[in-house]
Parts: sequence; C-alpha cells; structure tokens
Amino acid sequence: MAYIPSLQLVPRALNGDLRAIARLLTRAETGTGESRAALDEMFRRAGRAHIVGITGVPGSGKSTLVAKLAATLRTTGRRIAIVAIDPSSPFSGGSILGDRIRMGDLAGDPGVYVRSMATRGAMGGLASGTLEAVDVLDAAGYDVVIIETVGVGQDEVDVARAAHTTVVVSAPGLGDDIQAIKAGILEIADVHVVSKCDKPDANRTIADLKGMLALGLSMAPPPAPGRERWVAPVVATASLRDEGIGELAAAIDRHHRFLDTSGEIDARRKAINERRMLKACEEILRREFERHQNAKVSGLLQQIDARSLSPHAAAGKLLAQMHIEMHSGDNG
Amino acid sequence: MAYIPSLQLVPRALNGDLRAIARLLTRAETGTGESRAALDEMFRRAGRAHIVGITGVPGSGKSTLVAKLAATLRTTGRRIAIVAIDPSSPFSGGSILGDRIRMGDLAGDPGVYVRSMATRGAMGGLASGTLEAVDVLDAAGYDVVIIETVGVGQDEVDVARAAHTTVVVSAPGLGDDIQAIKAGILEIADVHVVSKCDKPDANRTIADLKGMLALGLSMAPPPAPGRERWVAPVVATASLRDEGIGELAAAIDRHHRFLDTSGEIDARRKAINERRMLKACEEILRREFERHQNAKVSGLLQQIDARSLSPHAAAGKLLAQMHIEMHSGDNG
Repeated sequence: MAYIPSLQLVPRALNGDLRAIARLLTRAETGTGESRAALDEMFRRAGRAHIVGITGVPGSGKSTLVAKLAATLRTTGRRIAIVAIDPSSPFSGGSILGDRIRMGDLAGDPGVYVRSMATRGAMGGLASGTLEAVDVLDAAGYDVVIIETVGVGQDEVDVARAAHTTVVVSAPGLGDDIQAIKAGILEIADVHVVSKCDKPDANRTIADLKGMLALGLSMAPPPAPGRERWVAPVVATASLRDEGIGELAAAIDRHHRFLDTSGEIDARRKAINERRMLKACEEILRREFERHQNAKVSGLLQQIDARSLSPHAAAGKLLAQMHIEMHSGDNG
Repeated sequence: MAYIPSLQLVPRALNGDLRAIARLLTRAETGTGESRAALDEMFRRAGRAHIVGITGVPGSGKSTLVAKLAATLRTTGRRIAIVAIDPSSPFSGGSILGDRIRMGDLAGDPGVYVRSMATRGAMGGLASGTLEAVDVLDAAGYDVVIIETVGVGQDEVDVARAAHTTVVVSAPGLGDDIQAIKAGILEIADVHVVSKCDKPDANRTIADLKGMLALGLSMAPPPAPGRERWVAPVVATASLRDEGIGELAAAIDRHHRFLDTSGEIDARRKAINERRMLKACEEILRREFERHQNAKVSGLLQQIDARSLSPHAAAGKLLAQMHIEMHSGDNG
C-alpha cells in the first residue's frame, strides 16, 4: 500500500471512511511529524462526542464490561467507538493483545468501532496519542467514544481524567495491593462499578466501597457557591449474566446530562484542555531531549556521572540551552 | 518542631542521623524549592550503594518478599534501606499504607531503614522524588537501597529501570490482564522471581515464564562485540516458608558482580543518568506550567476551547514563550 499523506486522509475520515480512520489512528499512535497537521485538523473538527473513560485494576473485567456497555448504548442508535489501551513493552512498543477478539458480540456492527492502542514506548506519550485518537473518532462522527485503560499509573489516570465521564471499575476479592491502588483512582470516578457481582464476596466489596465514598463525601468541602455536586453512584454489574449494564448506561447518560444542565461541562473541558496542553509540552520536551542527545546532553551526563552536577541541575541547564534554539527555530 | 533548613540537615544525614535522614526524605517526597541545594549535595555524596529495584504486579507479594530479602541481606552485615512507593491519591497526595507495619521482622534493627513514599500527586514527579530519596539513603551510608514499586505504569517502570539491578516478581494465578501487564516489564528484569511457589499452579507459572524468556532470548540480537550478555535467572520463592530468599539474595549479588566485572555498570549508569535528567526536565516544565497558569496559559486554553488551536500547537507556543523567561531567569 502506498503511503497516503495524512492531510489527504482527513476529509475521508470526516466522511466516515473506516480505512482512513484506521490510518489516522495509527499515526496518532506512532506520533510521526508528518501527521501533526492532520491530527490538529481532526482536533479542530472534534468536540461533539461524549468521551467516557473506563478504568479499573487488572482483573476487574473491564474489557467484557466495555463490550456489553457498547452493545447496550448501541440500542439507542448511537455510534460507539472504543479505544482500548494495552500495556505495551517499553522495548517493542507493540500492542500485546492486538485488536480485540473478545469484542465478539460487536463484530460486524458498522456502528461500533474498536481499536487497541499501544503506548508510544518507553519515552511515554500514552496520553497524547490516545487523546488524539479520540479526536479522530470524535471528528469522524462517533457519538460516544469509550477509552478503556488499566487504572494504575499516572499516565493511565491522566487518560481517565481526560474523559467527560470517568467510570472506575472495582471487583470483589482482588487483594490488598489492588485495593490500595484502587483508592488512588476512586476519587476521579463519576460512576463506580463493582463488577463480577455474581461472586460470593461482592456484597462486601459494594459495602466497603460505599463506606469509603460516604467517608470521602463527609470530608469533602462543600461545592463552590452556585455549583452543584455530583454524587457518584455505585452500579453493581455481572457482565456474564448481563446484569447491571442497563443501569451503567443510564448512569453514564445521567452524568452527561448533569454536565450540561449544571454547566459543569465548561470546568471539565477547561481541566481536560489544561492537562492535554501540559502532556503535549512534555512530549515536545522528550523529543527535543532525544534530538539533543549527542550534541549537548553528553557533556551534562559526564558531569552527572562524575557527580559534580545533579540530574536536576543538569536539567535546568539543558532547558536553558534548548529554549533559545527552539525559540529561534519557531520564529526565525 | 522548628523547621530546620535542608542544608543544615546534610552533614547530620551524612553522619547517619535518622531524624535528619527522615526529614530529607520528606523533602525529596514533597519537592520543595528550599530543599533543592541539599538534595543536590546528597546526590554528589552518593554513588556507593547498590540500588535494587523490585517491581511486580499487584498481588505478587512484593512487600513480604522485600522484608524477607532485607533480613537475608542483613546477615552479611550490610546496611539496608527500603523505599516503598505507595500508590497515592491524585488529590490528597498522601501515602495510603503509611509506614509499613508488615516489615515486623525488621523492626528495631538499626541496620535497616524502611520508608514509604507517596508520589508528588497528579502532576507527577514519582520518579524524581523517589530517586532523590535513594540518593539521600545512599549518601547516608546504606549499602543496599531497595526500591519497591508496583510494576505497572510508565512512572513505575522508569523507577524500576533506574536501579542497578531490577527484580521483577511474578506470581501464580493472577489472571489475564495481569499477565499482559507483566509482559511489559519482563524485559527490564535482571532477576525474575516467581513468588508464592507454595501455590499449586506455581510450576506452570515458572514454566510459562521460562518459555517466554527462552523465546525472547532466541529473538534477541547478539550482544555487541566485547560485551557480555547477562541471562536473567528465574528464582522461585515462597516467602511465608522462607524458601528461595537466599537464592534471590545470591542472584542479586551475582548480578551486582556481573555489572562490575563486565564493565556493564558504566552503560547502566549512563542510562540511569539520562533518564533522571529527562525526568528532572519534565518536572521543571510542570512547575513552570503551573506558574504560568494565570498569565499566558489561559489565553491559549481559550483558543483550545474554541478549537482554533490544538493542544499540541498550544504547547509549542507555550514552550517558545517560557523559554526566553527561563533563560533570562537562569542567566540574567
């Protein structure tokens, strides 16, 4: 296949051409310079979709839940896209699970688009690439874009917080370490799910979660004057029995309406934009760092190696050097 | 307690004063500007300790393993420090588990120092803070500094890769999602542990892991001329029965000797320094971003909100603006 310049793919993707969409998603994933203008254009054309982040600890059954949820949302006629982020090797940069076979029920439905994404490798970039992929699907006309992430690690939390509605999935009986991790992401949830509620210890998990949430709510400051508070509901699901999926879809839609009617959507959008801009800054920085590897970095590294300069002090010097060049490069 | 300036804590910490060490660790954790010079000084005084990263998926029993390992390493007279990174809330910034009670066996041994660290919150900073804490303990004279992280997420992988010797812990029967995550970190292991080998399905986990490693090795390029290859051993442990801990300690020491005798330690140090400098760059950038929030960022955010500018394009503009100021600030 000949390489099609990214900008040529834009009008096709906007028309819903699946192959053009797939190619732009790949380019968002790899983050090549040539695709920059096209991805920027897709961002400008986006903004209509409801972005739903679904995150949860490993073993919480997110993928099955996402497939069932998508099927349920489909019954209202909405077109659904799913971006599933796979943990990927820092070396191979490849996606481990590949495109999802477990999405079986949805196969062949042209109103559902499923895409697994790898991260951009050891140097990071998960957040930017994923959110640019969401832009592509949003601009291409999908009504709901679901981002599925493993809810651990800063990058994953960042992605989850870049959604309009964040769903955090807990599951019974996942052990101490996992509960500790979960506590870190509980606070970003707009909707809680306790999955696998056909398991015997599910009631205790639900009770524990509700207890923690009640405690958190009692300690939270009151909402600012004129602002409403959304109290995140807890939905119990059992995906394999199709239980609770309708309730989850309803809770997600209810949160979407809350954002609109309360005006909270503006604050949410602002927070998302801030975070995206910061992430993009970091990515530009990392690329600059790689470019400067041979020229200036090595001298600083030698000083670090001799312990005459700390990594932090070296970073300050490097940034000061990079800035002039980037600035003159941008304007000169 | 009166606040003691960080630089005054340095000579005390270098003399092994536990309270001075504890305070410097807290300052590394929170990353206040006042502590910068002191942490830089501790970095310059560090470089003697063997840094061991122990990482593994939630539920793999890392904490128990680390406690047992520390006790075993102690029998050789070495002084051991443990830095355990807790998943922390992006909002509270607090450590969830607090200082470890489960380190019970080690309590009261002045040759072992245990510290739980929180991350620096939603804006990141796990890596820099943790590694500065390691500098403090290294400079304070601990012979082995163990960093315990949950082996998922980019930040955690970065921390694990900042060790001289990285131990990756797997455990039997942790399910599909977890296996997928694990695959992402298998490649950074210098020593593999299969924990909980008193479990019935442990043999299959060991066999699976060895199979994956053999496959990986067969596909790996040959080592560069003149460079030796380290083949990461697989150690089976059962912490509760004290099985395999001696073998693990021996494998870690063997890797340490390999680094020295093969000269690989230089390449390892260089890679660690590079990563630390990049992380420090990112942290400076994040702080700059926060400082500029009101002044310049808001105009760019409005353009993003209106979708006339993509987050990536806005980031480029912001960096170009920041650079001049930082540069003149650094040199003027």
